[in-house]
Amino acid sequence: MKSLIKLNSPVYFESSASVVGGKEHSGPLGDRFDFWDGDAAFGMKTWERAEAEMQRIAFNLALNKIYARDRDVGAVFAGDLLNQCTASAYGLLPYDVPYFGLYGACSTAVEALILASLLIEGDHFTRIAASASSHNCTAERQFRTPIEYGGQRPQSAQWTVTGAAAFILSGRQPHGSAAKITHLMPGRSLDLGISDTSDMGAAMAPAAADTLTRYFRESDTTPDDCAKIVTGDLGSRGYDIMVDLMEKSGYDVRKKYTDCGMMIYDLTTDDVHSGGSGCGCSAVVLASHFLREIERGALGSVLFLGTGAMMSPCSIQQGENIPAIAHLIRIGR
Amino acid sequence: MKSLIKLNSPVYFESSASVVGGKEHSGPLGDRFDFWDGDAAFGMKTWERAEAEMQRIAFNLALNKIYARDRDVGAVFAGDLLNQCTASAYGLLPYDVPYFGLYGACSTAVEALILASLLIEGDHFTRIAASASSHNCTAERQFRTPIEYGGQRPQSAQWTVTGAAAFILSGRQPHGSAAKITHLMPGRSLDLGISDTSDMGAAMAPAAADTLTRYFRESDTTPDDCAKIVTGDLGSRGYDIMVDLMEKSGYDVRKKYTDCGMMIYDLTTDDVHSGGSGCGCSAVVLASHFLREIERGALGSVLFLGTGAMMSPCSIQQGENIPAIAHLIRIGR
Repeated sequence: MKSLIKLNSPVYFESSASVVGGKEHSGPLGDRFDFWDGDAAFGMKTWERAEAEMQRIAFNLALNKIYARDRDVGAVFAGDLLNQCTASAYGLLPYDVPYFGLYGACSTAVEALILASLLIEGDHFTRIAASASSHNCTAERQFRTPIEYGGQRPQSAQWTVTGAAAFILSGRQPHGSAAKITHLMPGRSLDLGISDTSDMGAAMAPAAADTLTRYFRESDTTPDDCAKIVTGDLGSRGYDIMVDLMEKSGYDVRKKYTDCGMMIYDLTTDDVHSGGSGCGCSAVVLASHFLREIERGALGSVLFLGTGAMMSPCSIQQGENIPAIAHLIRIGR
Repeated sequence: MKSLIKLNSPVYFESSASVVGGKEHSGPLGDRFDFWDGDAAFGMKTWERAEAEMQRIAFNLALNKIYARDRDVGAVFAGDLLNQCTASAYGLLPYDVPYFGLYGACSTAVEALILASLLIEGDHFTRIAASASSHNCTAERQFRTPIEYGGQRPQSAQWTVTGAAAFILSGRQPHGSAAKITHLMPGRSLDLGISDTSDMGAAMAPAAADTLTRYFRESDTTPDDCAKIVTGDLGSRGYDIMVDLMEKSGYDVRKKYTDCGMMIYDLTTDDVHSGGSGCGCSAVVLASHFLREIERGALGSVLFLGTGAMMSPCSIQQGENIPAIAHLIRIGR
């Protein structure tokens, strides 16, 4: 089955906005984010409410940048890592816009961008928003242990990014240099037998390699035909596995490949071990860095892969493996 | 903002399949379900694995009915109530099909049908599957208390349905009497100040009334113009509130209105209090009852509303209200 989709007409990034915590703002991409809060509480009493507020601010900022109101957007696709995706549901509650909740773990931002692109290409929507978030303190206590516990983390573990990003996609070209999505490849779930939640890069790398290999084969292209290959949050452990798996498929990606989880922190000093992770990781790095580089002409076409690990704490306790998925979009100018 | 969507060409239900537990099979619709397991374990060691197996069986059966393989389906939209939507992720893992995970609480089945319809109307997909599930034992221990605890439930509480349904939608008319989706209205999230998780009908009824009222206004129709108005799982408490709210909007829905949660059990003898609920409730009643009635010509056009309560146990413990949403599809022959 062929699953590469070439859009009939490109879908443009009309606006995007990124919101992060203090640790992300101190990282290598710090100055590029639109909004940050040093203590990551965003004025709220609970971490969960803080994450919802991040989604609200990101969506509001993305609207502000193009002088639009919520009613100017036909729908929003949103998701996060919290149980029952409450950061999205509560964060976007103030807005009067048809709401489609998604769960794709850390692949959610790209899943949302794929669905938004497909709907914009159709006849009923001219503008759709996509939004995703994660918060270190909500994720740690839900998936591992509360941060107050101070548990030791193995070197293969990743650091959940405190970040939210919102994108507004449009079928109309907003200005000459706007980044645009031209190709899509939805991912399929894979289980390669990994069950260690402190080694998620190892679980997700095979899914990323599967989608990227299928992309190259179906598009009849190679890594030489793009400017960058980017994964969402494989971290340094997953990065190495991804390079190996792609080599086995006959593709040398080393010169082109980078991972958002390795870009958002300084891996040598930030004590994040294998790198950043979470729905917010790929979302804020795409919004703050890659879209800007593409728009200013510093980067050609980028193959951007959202990578997700679809387990739950309960499924892992019950002895299940970690199913993983990777969705791909090709972004250019 | 107008949000009613009339599809350019109808999208057909090419196949559907329903899987339920023993309690649902003993109910008023019992003989209509395709597959049931008396002890609701579906041969598995955990309730969570049982729910995943229900999704697998429903998807497999829906494929079997049209002699199709997984690769004949362009994508699947799937969701459930479990943390991180693991029933869908694990249940559909064996199949080689692009996977889009959704979270719309109990509105998930209709959310999936809306997105599948919009994608089929486009140029890239001819056939898409939609799937949703819930299981009484996984939901009770995750959202309230484990069933072994034997907690008392107030009369306003609902009984989470053990059920999964899968639908295969197609842009090509499979046979003359196939049910089809002609109109869509995605819902928007609303918070009317309800925070009692034993009274979810009260939280969801305003969202259902909001979507239905907007549908009547934007389509310039009234309850007289349809054969049935169906909500997913408001239960008897939510039903009464829905009737009142619609009356206040100027629409008398009493002659046309029914709720899947009140149909799947016998409310007088099944000890389910206000009625059934869960992603599986509306999904299995649509698959087993309404689609068949429409196909055999016993029902004209049906306005079918998926209703969802978007809170989590954590958000309720933190004092938040219950945001609710209702997505609508119009189904006819």
